[in-house]
Amino acid sequence: MDSWRSALVNHNETDIWMRGYEIGALMKRASFPAVVFLLHRGELPTPGEEKLLNAILIASADHNSGAPSVATARLVASGNRQSLSAAVGAGMLAIGNEHGGAGEQCMEMIGRVAKAARDEGISIEQAAINAVAAARASGKRLPGFGHRRHTTDPRVAVMFDMAREVGVAGDGVATITAIEQALAAAVKALPTNVDGALAALLYDMGFPPSAGKLLFMVGRVAGLTAEVAEEHAREKPMRIKFPVVYDGVPPRELP
Amino acid sequence: MDSWRSALVNHNETDIWMRGYEIGALMKRASFPAVVFLLHRGELPTPGEEKLLNAILIASADHNSGAPSVATARLVASGNRQSLSAAVGAGMLAIGNEHGGAGEQCMEMIGRVAKAARDEGISIEQAAINAVAAARASGKRLPGFGHRRHTTDPRVAVMFDMAREVGVAGDGVATITAIEQALAAAVKALPTNVDGALAALLYDMGFPPSAGKLLFMVGRVAGLTAEVAEEHAREKPMRIKFPVVYDGVPPRELP
Amino acid sequence: MDSWRSALVNHNETDIWMRGYEIGALMKRASFPAVVFLLHRGELPTPGEEKLLNAILIASADHNSGAPSVATARLVASGNRQSLSAAVGAGMLAIGNEHGGAGEQCMEMIGRVAKAARDEGISIEQAAINAVAAARASGKRLPGFGHRRHTTDPRVAVMFDMAREVGVAGDGVATITAIEQALAAAVKALPTNVDGALAALLYDMGFPPSAGKLLFMVGRVAGLTAEVAEEHAREKPMRIKFPVVYDGVPPRELP
Amino acid sequence: MDSWRSALVNHNETDIWMRGYEIGALMKRASFPAVVFLLHRGELPTPGEEKLLNAILIASADHNSGAPSVATARLVASGNRQSLSAAVGAGMLAIGNEHGGAGEQCMEMIGRVAKAARDEGISIEQAAINAVAAARASGKRLPGFGHRRHTTDPRVAVMFDMAREVGVAGDGVATITAIEQALAAAVKALPTNVDGALAALLYDMGFPPSAGKLLFMVGRVAGLTAEVAEEHAREKPMRIKFPVVYDGVPPRELP
Repeated sequence: MDSWRSALVNHNETDIWMRGYEIGALMKRASFPAVVFLLHRGELPTPGEEKLLNAILIASADHNSGAPSVATARLVASGNRQSLSAAVGAGMLAIGNEHGGAGEQCMEMIGRVAKAARDEGISIEQAAINAVAAARASGKRLPGFGHRRHTTDPRVAVMFDMAREVGVAGDGVATITAIEQALAAAVKALPTNVDGALAALLYDMGFPPSAGKLLFMVGRVAGLTAEVAEEHAREKPMRIKFPVVYDGVPPRELP
Repeated sequence: MDSWRSALVNHNETDIWMRGYEIGALMKRASFPAVVFLLHRGELPTPGEEKLLNAILIASADHNSGAPSVATARLVASGNRQSLSAAVGAGMLAIGNEHGGAGEQCMEMIGRVAKAARDEGISIEQAAINAVAAARASGKRLPGFGHRRHTTDPRVAVMFDMAREVGVAGDGVATITAIEQALAAAVKALPTNVDGALAALLYDMGFPPSAGKLLFMVGRVAGLTAEVAEEHAREKPMRIKFPVVYDGVPPRELP
Repeated sequence: MDSWRSALVNHNETDIWMRGYEIGALMKRASFPAVVFLLHRGELPTPGEEKLLNAILIASADHNSGAPSVATARLVASGNRQSLSAAVGAGMLAIGNEHGGAGEQCMEMIGRVAKAARDEGISIEQAAINAVAAARASGKRLPGFGHRRHTTDPRVAVMFDMAREVGVAGDGVATITAIEQALAAAVKALPTNVDGALAALLYDMGFPPSAGKLLFMVGRVAGLTAEVAEEHAREKPMRIKFPVVYDGVPPRELP
Repeated sequence: MDSWRSALVNHNETDIWMRGYEIGALMKRASFPAVVFLLHRGELPTPGEEKLLNAILIASADHNSGAPSVATARLVASGNRQSLSAAVGAGMLAIGNEHGGAGEQCMEMIGRVAKAARDEGISIEQAAINAVAAARASGKRLPGFGHRRHTTDPRVAVMFDMAREVGVAGDGVATITAIEQALAAAVKALPTNVDGALAALLYDMGFPPSAGKLLFMVGRVAGLTAEVAEEHAREKPMRIKFPVVYDGVPPRELP
């Protein structure tokens, strides 16, 4: 079998290095969000980037069992008490484009709109107007706007303010803001949601689109583990019953 | 269906609270490890506890594909490129008592030895000697000692030093150290491994044993996400081939 | 890296053998339940065993979303539409001792009671009475009896009748029946449930206890895949909302 | 919370019906493959369809640890011995477009080519030639051809012969055969693989493309469960070590 290769972690009998830094030094002097950044990007973050990534992880941590990832983790904990990792891992699986992962598509959208502005020599505002018009014409929904629970998502303004404050806000924040305004003008007011804000910040820090899903997962595992612990501590197994209405064929005889 | 109940997260149309704290305030002023502590324990950590939990999460983050969790995540990424969460979630599933989760059993062992010392009015050192003798008599292996890769695990001394420095080290650190010494005297030198050190620190911070697994998962997701991103970026699907030797019955005819 | 070894499947550039039988011959002349038996046991089943295993797989296939495994699969399908395997795999994870997996513990219980009868030279009936008394004394619940949905589980009598009809019924069926009667005499009428019946039949066919979980999974995947297909076909993503009641601390200021 | 609705399974306190048929009747008189068909399609299969689906499930059951799904299940079993379902579920997660799931894309391709033939009033052979030319022009690989292990996949001819024998072979088999010939003429001989054959048969039986993945999973779980059982029975935990070559930055000091 061929060896696997990796540029992330190296170790020998007495040492471990992450991206070249000795793990003990990181444990003593770096923050966990800085190590997340280091593992994904190869270099430590600036203080501003570290602050933003810390905020993103907290914003993603938990939103209660209304979220499919949280509900899934609790449901698995209800049927399988032998494996904590089965419950947490199952919660992860519920993360996709529809839940927790729209950040990935949103980063791709931001990239396309920002590129169109550059390529066509137009403003980001105009490129956003064009993108909204194109989406309407093709009947597509733009990712990153609206939330089924919040009229205003409290995490969004905090993220944008922080990105401006630390000087990271760039084309990402500008583009998502321009799309929000173009949407409001052409369709209706649909505020940027947490996926959209997270996508704008990750874009401005130079992450690839997949980070829109992967870093959400890093944050969310904080909540999933705590929810599973609460389920074990407070609830009996098999407590969860769903009201299913059968609407198929009536009883019949085998041929 | 009965409502679910939870003391972790509350929200309305414009606000989210974690354990009572408004999420925007946490994003601006708390660290992610502090929020992990908050979600699991209900209160924010002291500065010393925050420093320790931060170090624990970094220590757990990654150890390369020699670890089943990391290898699993990369293997799933190799066969299923549609879902990042499937790869990360699968990596989680490899965490059990045998990999990444010995901390849970180790916390239970620490609890038993510390309790025996209190109940029997003997020193922790004597209780440790008794526990080692009992384990030898029943042929059981004590969790938290030895590592298949490291003669000395570089993460262990850092954790113990830090726990003493911030004044958190208590019965947990004392017990694991006493067991290590009793093992060396009665059997052979088997240094405390990262599971054992993590268990001692979590015990001294008042976490329940399940945290030995759950908080390892919170740290490990940093590495799993980065390893999956590296697999997607650098490797082709289906690259991984295992050399399987068949040792079953030879070809035969159906009856 | 050491080679892996396996006695299950062998292949070369033009052939595949399962337990020594050429796959084309199996596809043409064997039934899928017979191949499940072959893979697990090394030999093809007798016609009676094949009939029983076929019935066990059908009995395990689906029980609607009231079952955690089914509800989990649908919930993951609701948040992650990119990966069918994530939804089906998550459904699997909900299978544990509490749901779908009690057959494993039940087979261990049957084994203990049958062994006690042999070792102590008493009847299975007496060994069952002793086991019920011991369980009551220690406050333990015996696995395999009672169902939260059914007063009489329609699958149980079919399994027992079939096992007698094909001549497979032995100590397993005798033991579970004796325990049911001892329970009714000492505590209350708690009919054998599908886990208990499945366990008795697998025991009488010579399967190890883990088969009580593993073969349930083989059957259940039929339902999980159909339920996920129905979710994709009939429902919108993110349709599932849980009514969560927050009962934690009220809003408070960060220190 | 709104009720869930389903046309698959109904039950009351004493009965269970699958698609209207009483479960005891199915257990006694139907085969497991027929119940798989029933759950997915709403009606029982014809004898020919039942024979084909039985063969498809056997063909998908196992291919040894060279397959990512099997290797994943064994790897998770190596780190997490507490949960059989975690190992089997993880194996499922490795199934995607790249492994075990190409049948889905292949069914979509067959549908497009067959539709083009109808819409344009040309032969399936000509539509296949056009599809191969279009794929070459756009640099895309057509799914369902070639195998990294087999020059001739022994399962393919058996499936095609059986489909013709039972009278199910239609546009699906004709289209995949025509594409294989067009590929051989325009590029090189790349024989239809098991995903392609399975896709042709499922297409001719009227299944939707998602069945190309979902029914492979139903078959594969037979192998995953047997491989996990073998891993537990024959191997020690943590036996699997990967040879990782680190090719990242050398050791360096923290700033």
